[in-house]
Amino acid sequence: MLKSETKIRVRYGETDQMGYVYYGNYPLYYEVSRTDMIKKIGWTYGEMEKSGVMMPVASLNVKYIRPAFYDEELTVKVVVKNMPTKKMEFEYEVFNEQNKLINKGNTTLVFVDMKTGRLTNPPQEFTDKLKKYFK
Amino acid sequence: MLKSETKIRVRYGETDQMGYVYYGNYPLYYEVSRTDMIKKIGWTYGEMEKSGVMMPVASLNVKYIRPAFYDEELTVKVVVKNMPTKKMEFEYEVFNEQNKLINKGNTTLVFVDMKTGRLTNPPQEFTDKLKKYFK
Amino acid sequence: MLKSETKIRVRYGETDQMGYVYYGNYPLYYEVSRTDMIKKIGWTYGEMEKSGVMMPVASLNVKYIRPAFYDEELTVKVVVKNMPTKKMEFEYEVFNEQNKLINKGNTTLVFVDMKTGRLTNPPQEFTDKLKKYFK
Amino acid sequence: MLKSETKIRVRYGETDQMGYVYYGNYPLYYEVSRTDMIKKIGWTYGEMEKSGVMMPVASLNVKYIRPAFYDEELTVKVVVKNMPTKKMEFEYEVFNEQNKLINKGNTTLVFVDMKTGRLTNPPQEFTDKLKKYFK
Repeated sequence: MLKSETKIRVRYGETDQMGYVYYGNYPLYYEVSRTDMIKKIGWTYGEMEKSGVMMPVASLNVKYIRPAFYDEELTVKVVVKNMPTKKMEFEYEVFNEQNKLINKGNTTLVFVDMKTGRLTNPPQEFTDKLKKYFK
Repeated sequence: MLKSETKIRVRYGETDQMGYVYYGNYPLYYEVSRTDMIKKIGWTYGEMEKSGVMMPVASLNVKYIRPAFYDEELTVKVVVKNMPTKKMEFEYEVFNEQNKLINKGNTTLVFVDMKTGRLTNPPQEFTDKLKKYFK
Repeated sequence: MLKSETKIRVRYGETDQMGYVYYGNYPLYYEVSRTDMIKKIGWTYGEMEKSGVMMPVASLNVKYIRPAFYDEELTVKVVVKNMPTKKMEFEYEVFNEQNKLINKGNTTLVFVDMKTGRLTNPPQEFTDKLKKYFK
Repeated sequence: MLKSETKIRVRYGETDQMGYVYYGNYPLYYEVSRTDMIKKIGWTYGEMEKSGVMMPVASLNVKYIRPAFYDEELTVKVVVKNMPTKKMEFEYEVFNEQNKLINKGNTTLVFVDMKTGRLTNPPQEFTDKLKKYFK
């Protein structure tokens, strides 16, 4: 199992007139936590694209539990439970400064060969770095 | 059953370096189609907030089927199948200019009393306008 | 002189907790009006990029005069006063539904050869379409 | 003179199909650096709004010098040169990881009484905290 935790501070422009973080901004927060997780295992998503593989999102599910507010520091906890095949599943939980769960969700990303546009396996280098987390 | 259809043209700033519409922008498209649907039944979401009721999103689910590209005119079809109670469920399908289904999803929104912050029934005026669609 | 006018409806996600359109969203509105203007002269910005030329923004200036609100239909008037050389200057005025000027600004975009990354002339086809507006 | 420095990592969703940070995202970066600066002097912009004063942006000017890329850590340096009156001017410089200046700009924000909607002086508490920087 692969776990990571990322701090994100809410920007003013991410709120809406309800005074809450706009619901469409959580996918951005999830993305930041994914980028961060991949970095922590010693790779980067940028390198993956340079190696010719990209990871578009195939599905997104979000539960909005409590609102988030301007300038709060949120903690996004992300977990990958299974060794990726042609797809990779991420689960997220977002906590506010009072450590209350305010949001949870998951995304499935797929590995796509940028030349052919078709599903592919994750790059070998990425798989090698992931292995130790999934015994 | 309540149905509506909205055209949305993809903005440059909505694409990402993959050359696709960023996955986090679909919630915005869904919102535009909701706003438009409510207007078509003779009300506005703005009036709802003025009457003291807001509709935060409680859940969001999205399937990404095909990419959308800069300057494409997308068609968002939105359907409400059930008369809203304290919540209202919207289902979305997004089509590109070739009339291919590129994205589908749904959201559940809840009615919240802006003074108390608690779940409430939809405003009477809104319910009255909705009734004829759900016999 | 080249002129164009584009209608844009304010999205909920574009407001912030002040209840106004967030100041960082006007550049998006300007971009929509540019895309629209280029289309009206019989070309598209997408074709320009396919021809190997892109137009990054070199400068942006905005004056915020009155706020814009959720669900308002804004009118963006854009003007190009001079035949583009290696750069192209756009001036914008944004009006609300009461026809009040709420925002004005300008951007300078440059033509860049996507292979070399260097400044270049606009594509011939684009220049040809523009000529009649600048006698 | 008041100075502050903030690190911002570029999100994937902030790039566009050019592969650069979309020009409309720099105002967000500026805002993050302002929020951060105000926090460093021992106040918060949130407290200002709670005290009944908001700070809408009156003008924005941006020069785009070099592109910024996904996952780069940018440094935003912000300076306030003059003690604010009814308005407050911020100047920004954005540097990439190679310490190259990629973007510079400025914004003027005004103090507005949230009840009357009219220009006002900055809150006393804020002025008190600022004084020591402007002798």
